[in-house]
Amino acid sequence: QTNITVYGSMDLGIVHESGGPKAAGWTVQSGVEAGSRLGFKGTENLGGGLQALFVLESGIAGDTGGSRPGGLAFGRQSLVGLSGGFGTIKLGRQFNLLTYALMDVDPFGGGHEGAYSNIMFSDFRTSNGVYYTTPTMQGFKASLTYAPGETPGNSKAKRETGLALEYQRGPLFAVFAHRNLEDATGSSRNKVSFAGATYQVGAFKGALGYAVNKDPAMAMDSRDLIVGATCEHGPSTYLVSWIQHKDRSILDQDANQAAIGYTFALSKRTDLYSSYSRINNKNGAPFTVGNAIEVGSGKRGFAAGINHKF
Amino acid sequence: QTNITVYGSMDLGIVHESGGPKAAGWTVQSGVEAGSRLGFKGTENLGGGLQALFVLESGIAGDTGGSRPGGLAFGRQSLVGLSGGFGTIKLGRQFNLLTYALMDVDPFGGGHEGAYSNIMFSDFRTSNGVYYTTPTMQGFKASLTYAPGETPGNSKAKRETGLALEYQRGPLFAVFAHRNLEDATGSSRNKVSFAGATYQVGAFKGALGYAVNKDPAMAMDSRDLIVGATCEHGPSTYLVSWIQHKDRSILDQDANQAAIGYTFALSKRTDLYSSYSRINNKNGAPFTVGNAIEVGSGKRGFAAGINHKF
Amino acid sequence: QTNITVYGSMDLGIVHESGGPKAAGWTVQSGVEAGSRLGFKGTENLGGGLQALFVLESGIAGDTGGSRPGGLAFGRQSLVGLSGGFGTIKLGRQFNLLTYALMDVDPFGGGHEGAYSNIMFSDFRTSNGVYYTTPTMQGFKASLTYAPGETPGNSKAKRETGLALEYQRGPLFAVFAHRNLEDATGSSRNKVSFAGATYQVGAFKGALGYAVNKDPAMAMDSRDLIVGATCEHGPSTYLVSWIQHKDRSILDQDANQAAIGYTFALSKRTDLYSSYSRINNKNGAPFTVGNAIEVGSGKRGFAAGINHKF
Repeated sequence: QTNITVYGSMDLGIVHESGGPKAAGWTVQSGVEAGSRLGFKGTENLGGGLQALFVLESGIAGDTGGSRPGGLAFGRQSLVGLSGGFGTIKLGRQFNLLTYALMDVDPFGGGHEGAYSNIMFSDFRTSNGVYYTTPTMQGFKASLTYAPGETPGNSKAKRETGLALEYQRGPLFAVFAHRNLEDATGSSRNKVSFAGATYQVGAFKGALGYAVNKDPAMAMDSRDLIVGATCEHGPSTYLVSWIQHKDRSILDQDANQAAIGYTFALSKRTDLYSSYSRINNKNGAPFTVGNAIEVGSGKRGFAAGINHKF
Repeated sequence: QTNITVYGSMDLGIVHESGGPKAAGWTVQSGVEAGSRLGFKGTENLGGGLQALFVLESGIAGDTGGSRPGGLAFGRQSLVGLSGGFGTIKLGRQFNLLTYALMDVDPFGGGHEGAYSNIMFSDFRTSNGVYYTTPTMQGFKASLTYAPGETPGNSKAKRETGLALEYQRGPLFAVFAHRNLEDATGSSRNKVSFAGATYQVGAFKGALGYAVNKDPAMAMDSRDLIVGATCEHGPSTYLVSWIQHKDRSILDQDANQAAIGYTFALSKRTDLYSSYSRINNKNGAPFTVGNAIEVGSGKRGFAAGINHKF
Repeated sequence: QTNITVYGSMDLGIVHESGGPKAAGWTVQSGVEAGSRLGFKGTENLGGGLQALFVLESGIAGDTGGSRPGGLAFGRQSLVGLSGGFGTIKLGRQFNLLTYALMDVDPFGGGHEGAYSNIMFSDFRTSNGVYYTTPTMQGFKASLTYAPGETPGNSKAKRETGLALEYQRGPLFAVFAHRNLEDATGSSRNKVSFAGATYQVGAFKGALGYAVNKDPAMAMDSRDLIVGATCEHGPSTYLVSWIQHKDRSILDQDANQAAIGYTFALSKRTDLYSSYSRINNKNGAPFTVGNAIEVGSGKRGFAAGINHKF
């Protein structure tokens, strides 16, 4: 079986959610550090530098044996594509460009109790997408996505477009990403932009990012600032982040999240982790402390668990 | 892992459907040329020429990460069987004999925008089936299927039986297939018969087939004639077919489909494809141009995409 | 791909269910002897005797291509854990301790038409579980499970706890298992205990077990006695069991089941099987003859089929 690589990870932890009437207390959760998954992928050399590729990735609710997102067999990623000197073209379902950018800047990588998605952007993937990424040139790489809304008689409705620009050189990584999503009638557009960077100094890596989220139809207008750092020390990694959410709508529902985390690598494939996060909601802001998969149920969250890759 | 072969294909294309108020316009679709799938199969030699075998095949909606048919983990095929000098017996779910026959004769192999199923028979699989196939003798092979309706107190209701006879010698392939499906009360029977043949002359292969579809309870009585050809030229293959649907019911909803296609093999495992089909509906006939998986939404369909096998 | 073992089994049979107005008659069923499945598992040596492990196991409805239990991608088992000198800790979903104990004592191993679950305990698995098993010491092994009910504001509701004690020495295997399951409000508790043993004498193995099932809130109070034996003779194995269900509630719905079975090993991986079971229901007791997966539809059941492991 040389054509297919089977891979995945199982991440399960014990979580305590508190703060608020719906807080779940102690639970067992899947995908705290990173979503549990089972994947199948492969590439084929077609000659002349051209390569075919595919990815099929199931998201697993390891606590119950179900799927995440629910009801989808390969809900994390399902795509086929061609890569070569011109770059890479893919068709199917994958993470959108904003999600990649946010995960790359967030010290928690989009997971743990401190996940950026708790109070920033949480629309992870795009179905029916056409994705194009340029080759890397002088440290720069650009990506474009287009996903038709597939609404009969209205080619604008639900249409999604996106672009990202990445730069990596030495200790510096910088990224800008933008997404437009038309609403169900094609008469209004949700626009989200994010710019962020990380900088490595020895074992220490600092992170800084800023997002703008506007949606006239939903009277939504907010700004997010994320600041954080990671520090590696042998098998240990220390994680910290602070996110400020400014609501410019008339509801004025500001919020902020402070989070700390710790991971201990038992091997390259397996680690133990723990994290704690606290959200401050103003004027009835609805944010809850979740993690890579769960949206959470309260203003405070603690988790400890194991993530095993295979 | 010597017992299991993991295999599959990812086929995604860009499709334009037009002609009619519900036509979807531009969409990204999965399984245009052939249904995207992930399979697990294997055989075990039991000695004395006896062999155990199994197939588990998931159908994948590569555009959204879902399953096709929806809701089934292994909806394409799931079966176990024994083969030997007596032939092959299988139990489970698989394509019915009519579907195999139609896919073998259709120049489009049941896929692309010209799929026979757009205006002919589109009931692909049988659950709860017992399948028997004889060994090949003098080029002949016969198959029988029986699937109980599993209706308490009514052993006839929903029962399905089928038979097929195939002949392959030199450039000639010929097939006859028949299926009986009892309705939910066991008081009426849908009978479908199909006879077809293909003949190879050099790079050129001609195809001809004729189907009869009768269902007294649904006042359905129709005839389908399919004529087509394929021509291979290096990595290129040209496809063409014409299907005439004659409705003998009082509705008199005749229709016909004309389709052309082109595939370009990047390798044995990967090809690019394009196809166009147009359906002519008379007296409000409801047919739409779909493909291997999608049923379509309009009277005209164009597709271009990639199919990568692994 | 050295990290992952892909494995499974496909078991399909022809079943006749009779006795009672809802009896299904002849059907094709999946998982008669043992549930059809596809699994992915692996271990990683972490040094110092420590090992990481995972299991992902899909249950397959081989007759229809669906999942069993329905709607769950990995409904049989999904877990990650660590094992070492201290024993084994697992997190996720797996069979509960009562189910393991009953399957180990039941001559039919929890499958065939004589499955213990037809009239004894049939709640197979636990989600959101934390499982701990001691190392084996002097033939003894103990296990504990804890699964939070995950009900906001009520930490007791739906909580499940369990324990098991196993002893294996020479021809003797003995097991005791207990489970507590709190109801949806945390005000009442279903308690089930089972003690059983098997003893091997040459090709013959006898089995004896006794269960107590109490649930004050549901006015449930019953006792089950299971007696049975298996006998191996070359590739043949003969199976027999008798189960007496005593209902101590005011409904007095006693029942008993008598079952015989036969399996013929075509190889280590593949066998043919047949079994017959008959249930006697008193005072409207609702039990039906099912098997490893199906719950059945009548008071009598006959099955013949094939189970192929891979």
